Amino acid sequence: MFCHMKIKIAELKELMEKIVSSKYYSADEAEKIVEVLLYADLAGNNTQGFLKLLEGERAQDIVPKYKPKIIRETELSTLIDGGGSAGPLPAQIATEKVIELAVKNGFAIVGVNNTFSSVGALGFYGRKIAKNNLIGIVAASSPKAILHFGGIDPAYGTNPIAFAFPTKTNPIVFDMAASAITWYGLIRAKTLGEKLPDNVAIDKDGNITTDPEAAMKGAILPFDRSYKGSGLAMVVELLAGVLPGANYVFNEGDWGTTFIAISPNLLMDTDEFKNRSSDLIKKVKSGRTQPGKTIHIPGFDSETEIQKTVNSGEIEIEEKLLNSLKNL
Amino acid sequence: MFCHMKIKIAELKELMEKIVSSKYYSADEAEKIVEVLLYADLAGNNTQGFLKLLEGERAQDIVPKYKPKIIRETELSTLIDGGGSAGPLPAQIATEKVIELAVKNGFAIVGVNNTFSSVGALGFYGRKIAKNNLIGIVAASSPKAILHFGGIDPAYGTNPIAFAFPTKTNPIVFDMAASAITWYGLIRAKTLGEKLPDNVAIDKDGNITTDPEAAMKGAILPFDRSYKGSGLAMVVELLAGVLPGANYVFNEGDWGTTFIAISPNLLMDTDEFKNRSSDLIKKVKSGRTQPGKTIHIPGFDSETEIQKTVNSGEIEIEEKLLNSLKNL
Repeated sequence: MFCHMKIKIAELKELMEKIVSSKYYSADEAEKIVEVLLYADLAGNNTQGFLKLLEGERAQDIVPKYKPKIIRETELSTLIDGGGSAGPLPAQIATEKVIELAVKNGFAIVGVNNTFSSVGALGFYGRKIAKNNLIGIVAASSPKAILHFGGIDPAYGTNPIAFAFPTKTNPIVFDMAASAITWYGLIRAKTLGEKLPDNVAIDKDGNITTDPEAAMKGAILPFDRSYKGSGLAMVVELLAGVLPGANYVFNEGDWGTTFIAISPNLLMDTDEFKNRSSDLIKKVKSGRTQPGKTIHIPGFDSETEIQKTVNSGEIEIEEKLLNSLKNL
Repeated sequence: MFCHMKIKIAELKELMEKIVSSKYYSADEAEKIVEVLLYADLAGNNTQGFLKLLEGERAQDIVPKYKPKIIRETELSTLIDGGGSAGPLPAQIATEKVIELAVKNGFAIVGVNNTFSSVGALGFYGRKIAKNNLIGIVAASSPKAILHFGGIDPAYGTNPIAFAFPTKTNPIVFDMAASAITWYGLIRAKTLGEKLPDNVAIDKDGNITTDPEAAMKGAILPFDRSYKGSGLAMVVELLAGVLPGANYVFNEGDWGTTFIAISPNLLMDTDEFKNRSSDLIKKVKSGRTQPGKTIHIPGFDSETEIQKTVNSGEIEIEEKLLNSLKNL
């Protein structure tokens, strides 16, 4: 049984910040971390939201070895050593840096290694980049989860990638995991005692399984169950694991992230680009739809929903999960 | 019935160059165009090879309005007006340019608009970029083919994207179309009188079809039949259609291409990156495989096959298609 209730967004934010700042993070650091998680909740992406304070590598329990620090720098790039902290903290710093450098020079790349825990929903960072009139590409590697097509062992992380584009209004933000189900999807199924669909994971012997615990010991399938999905997972492993100096392949517990920002102005006046990207949305939405379906533009449409929720001041969440949060 | 025969690679190259240079292109331009197509044949990617001189927008028939020319330039970027020529010609020029600028500055982006016909297999260009110790991303937009998830009308091109990475030996080159079948796959099925698989395309009314001609009037499904594949198609439409000033969405006959090159050196010494990317391959190949399957590393493994074919001096092709080529 699921009971949903409404809670003030400000109250949820305060509760989350209190939890994250209770041990190892300052109020300022907790604010940065919670901003990422709360965005996912507001966007309805509930496996990347406050659930991350309840299960898996909980942000508030991750003991940083030291503050994130810059270890390599050029005019166009920065490499950040995360100091073993919760992913969203160095990722927020990286996003500020990639925007600053790309606004100045037209392009920037920022890598993050030595973080503990995922950085959360990549769309959050992509959206920030796009709101600064830049095209954003964000890729994140994570511990072993997805098999390489033809293989049995989990080679790559669930390895999401996001692409974000400015428009005249809301950014377009397309954010996808390379896996048929996210790792938090497995955790959530386990927490709620649910079975998995019968085509998303194999057990450790290579047989399809619907048991989330067996899937965690086995491997997740690529999202399209083909070589293309596993190829994309490999690309993310190279961009976000190999390139910023994080672990890669059969990785037992390390996360790496790479942020790229490109000014449209390198090829076209930015205002013209924004006119054209807005026109793309208008055109796509003018097409015929399949019965009962709509044309959804990722990021663009959810931004409108997020604004409605923010304006209402309240968010709906599962009572059971809220109570767990309050009892932390 | 298919009869295969062997032909000397040099002879096939000469034949193709003769065809392409017979009307509108100089010997030098024809060499550039044929290099791209022949690479696809050598890589066994036969929908992107000499077949392109037989069907569809045949390179030798594309009348250029003027020579490709640079219309915008910064330290990090170049925009090329293709002058209405066959795609591979400005794409070769763009690839040289993106390598030159990125070797110098660590990053470059080059866009191409106003080309007529696809640029061919993107892996070709990605491989060239990676052989210059750069990470390559190449995206190409094309006339309407794929539906936006939930829609019926063909909104986006088949929109391939390629990612290429240097290693200590052969580059890794991952190259995929966003469509469940390529446009040349449709042309090929039509030419050979074959039916399509029953899950790759719809007719103009939105119903699944196996008839290649009905599919050409309808729409192709995204490769994973989900919102992720259509989202990637949209990303490519933005990167390679909107950004370089080419057409986009319900595009009737225009091609755009964007080339990105990033030096690993921005985040890590390039030699270290190459050691790590080679190690990634070794690790992935060390994993267990499903019965009868192997671990295939895109680009890396096919490069070895290409080298074998090149060293043998001969290539196997369908007699019927070779005769059509000789009779042009």
